[in-house]
Formats: sequence, structure tokens, C-alpha cells
Amino acid sequence: MNRLSLNQKTIDTSTLPEAVAACVAAGIESIGVWREPLASVGVERGAELIAQAGLRVSSLCRGGFFTGPDRAAVLADNRGAVDEAAALGADCLVLVVGGLPDGSRDLPGARAVVAEVLGELAPYAAERSVRLALEPMHPIYCADRGVLSTLGQALDLAERFDPGVVGVVVDTFHVWWDPDLERQIDRAAGRIASFQVCDWITPLPADTLLARGVMGDGHIDFRHIAGLVAKAGYTGDVEVEIFNADLWAQPAGVVVPLIAERFAATCAS
Amino acid sequence: MNRLSLNQKTIDTSTLPEAVAACVAAGIESIGVWREPLASVGVERGAELIAQAGLRVSSLCRGGFFTGPDRAAVLADNRGAVDEAAALGADCLVLVVGGLPDGSRDLPGARAVVAEVLGELAPYAAERSVRLALEPMHPIYCADRGVLSTLGQALDLAERFDPGVVGVVVDTFHVWWDPDLERQIDRAAGRIASFQVCDWITPLPADTLLARGVMGDGHIDFRHIAGLVAKAGYTGDVEVEIFNADLWAQPAGVVVPLIAERFAATCAS
Repeated sequence: MNRLSLNQKTIDTSTLPEAVAACVAAGIESIGVWREPLASVGVERGAELIAQAGLRVSSLCRGGFFTGPDRAAVLADNRGAVDEAAALGADCLVLVVGGLPDGSRDLPGARAVVAEVLGELAPYAAERSVRLALEPMHPIYCADRGVLSTLGQALDLAERFDPGVVGVVVDTFHVWWDPDLERQIDRAAGRIASFQVCDWITPLPADTLLARGVMGDGHIDFRHIAGLVAKAGYTGDVEVEIFNADLWAQPAGVVVPLIAERFAATCAS
Repeated sequence: MNRLSLNQKTIDTSTLPEAVAACVAAGIESIGVWREPLASVGVERGAELIAQAGLRVSSLCRGGFFTGPDRAAVLADNRGAVDEAAALGADCLVLVVGGLPDGSRDLPGARAVVAEVLGELAPYAAERSVRLALEPMHPIYCADRGVLSTLGQALDLAERFDPGVVGVVVDTFHVWWDPDLERQIDRAAGRIASFQVCDWITPLPADTLLARGVMGDGHIDFRHIAGLVAKAGYTGDVEVEIFNADLWAQPAGVVVPLIAERFAATCAS
């Protein structure tokens, strides 16, 4: 089994059919699907395409943004995402929980809202056998994307729920700096719903949302983190998810073999 | 007593005599001095200027970069910084500990080096009654500036030493996102050597080193953090330290009154 999964975001300009074809061409057996390109082909057609190609779906990206102003809309959107994850048979639905509400400086308040909305969404996900995956985000994104800032904090929240219903994402880009990483990954045993890799590069590109690098181009010791994740019992797919403008400017036929090669060189055991 | 201290970096294009004059003109009683502009006038002359103006020196910025390739040079430079801090009668010498060595991905190793060098420097500082102040840096700087990433981690290290010799810096920009902040500031009682303020603004400017905002322009709840620091017993100066290209483009006569006004509005109790 090839554990490498191609997260669609790595080839952001490709359609879902193109991404599926790129996986097949490169011998990649698993894909991380994004909702927007899935919606473009339709959920049913997308699920068919993926199944026909024999790919696993390591994640659906993404639900979340729980701190938005309209709670009903937030829940409706996330229930929709759960339905899509169920239709795809995805291993999990990745949740980026959202940043501070516009104009707010109440970080503890925003974190409390995240816990509240998760409590409302979890039973819906449980009924549909969809595992929610809380993604701690690098503190660089605390204000505007995700107020869950550490794996420890994500686990504090996840542990209120059944591990089959609420797990966590370990994304090297978000957690590599954490002085408490060994202990928290160990603690995450049974809760790791997704393991994502990409590198931290310096100088950081001007658009910090696109600041991720191909494994090997930056400062992260992937084998060390992959070892911790393995020691915690995780045996699932490893998603390569890279938001990077330079990468997006290249054709999938170039990018996919490159990341497969780098994955083998930096992450595979 | 006016607890506001002007960190020189906030008016980066001013000389030390100009910065001292700007403090006096604005009724500011304390200054955070940087080594380069101090060297330009000479340490003795700089110390005289500051004493004649009746200013306190809340910090000397900065020593550190312990992870550099030449240990002897690192120690010599830091001993020089200790001497300068002693000459100024500074409350502390701020230490930015340094990032990963060039080409290295060994983060635990770099952190171990920091502890080692600190152990070598501390007796020298103790003999000169200079308090070293470990500055945990925002994880955005982990690779290239500071492998101390959280207040908790800085305290783990500081606690190996006498609190009069090794303390910590609480800088809102670096720590505001930390889910463990309340507990760690509480734990820092007796160890807070410096309290620095500036805001986290979004979108983050392209040069992340200059990404700091004037208090009130961003997402940080200063009164909350100032309250935690006060509860931990800190009664010293509060330094406004803002690395920001737009601010640096303006004359000190505009910037200093602005930060005094914003300090009063956002931080003062």
C-alpha cells in the first residue's frame, strides 16, 4: 500500500477529474478532496469518478469557520460538508475552525464558540459515521483562520467526544515548531484522523496563506514527525497538501511526480 | 510614574540622542535601548545622555543568537552585551535566542544548544548584576530567529536559574495566541523581566519581520494581557516595541505622541 495521498490543493488549478487522473498516472492510491472542485462536478459524479479510479479518500477539506456571524448558516454549511464526506466515504472531514469574528479581540470567547458549535455538529456527524478532524493551525493564522493554535488545545477539545467522531489533524506546517509536540502526538494516539505534510520555508512568501513549501525545501524534519505519528499508532494515508503559488503555476503532470519523489525522500519509512 | 517605555526600534531611523529627546518631549520616563544606535554614540556617552535626561532603561536589546556557528564569537558578543547592559543600568538584557543553524532541521538540537549557551552566559551576567530576559518568539520566527516558541518553554529554561539572573519577556505580539497564556503568565510571577506591547495586524505585511502594528490597529486584547501580567506581580515599565515600515517612514515627533496616546487608550489601567 502506497500511503501517499494527493491533497487536491497541491494542484489547485486542476479539476477533480484531472486530479483523479493525475493520481492514477502517478500510482497514487488516495486523494484529499476539496469541496469547491467537488461541487463543480457534483458530489455524486465526483464520488463515482473516485470510486471507478479505485482511490481512497483520505479527507474532505473542509468544514469549520465556526466563528462566523450567522450560527444557522455555519451549521447548515457544515452539515452539508458532513453529507459530502459521507457520500465520498472520506476518512474524515477536516475542520478549520475560524478566526476572531470581525472586529472582535475576544480570543477566549471565540474559542468557546468553537467548542459550542462542535458540540452541535458532532451528533450529526456521528449519525452519518463521518469523523470530524480538528485542525490546529499555525499561530500565524490565529486571528483570521483558526483559533485552535496547538495540538494540545485541539486534543483538549476533541477529548470531550468519542474518538471515532472527533479526531485531530497533524499537519507538519502547523505543528512543527511546538516544543510540546512529542508529548501531544503521543497523547493523540487513537485520535489522529489525518496526517498532512508540507514544509516551512524561509523567507516566508509575501502571501502567508501560500507560504507552504515542498518537503525538503524548508526546515521541517519529516522523518522525526512521521516517526512520532507512527509511534502513536497511525497507519493511515499521508496527505501532501501544499498551498504555494509557484507550484500552482506548474502543470499537474510536473507537480505530482515531484511531490511523489520528495515524499519518498523525506517522509516514507 | 509613567510606565510607558519607548523601545528605540519603534523610531528606528532616530539616533539615540534623538530618541532620548523624543522621550523627554513626550513626557516618557523610560527607554528600551538597542545596541547598534548605542554603539554609534559610544556606550559611555550613551549612558550619560540617558542619565542626564533622567530616563530609566527598561531593557537593552539585544543579546542572543546562541545557535550561531561560532560558539566563542557568540559568547564574546553576548558578554559584550552584558557589559553594555551593566553600563546603562538596564533592567534586563533581552535575548533573542536564534533559529535553526543554516541547513539544519534539528529543532530539539538547536533548543539544547540554547540551554547550553545560556548556562555559560548566566554566571557572567550574575557577576555584573545583569538580568537576562529570555524572549519567547512567535512560532512564525522559529526557523530563523528564535527556537523558544512559547512562554512555557522559556520558563522551563529560565527556572533552572535564579530569577534575578534569568527572567522572561512577555511580548504581546509573540504570545497573544497562546491557549496556555493565562497559566503561563501566572507561572511567570517573579520572572517577568520585561513586558513589551505591540499589535498583531492582518493581513500580515509582506515582510513578516516588520509585521507589528500599533496597539489598537489589530487583534490583541491588551488590557486582558496587561491584567494577567499585573496579577503576576509585575510593576515595571511597559515597552512599546513596533517593527513597522510605515511607522519608520514617519518622523519621531509624529510617532511618539501617537504611541503614547494609543498606550493610554489600550494598555494603561
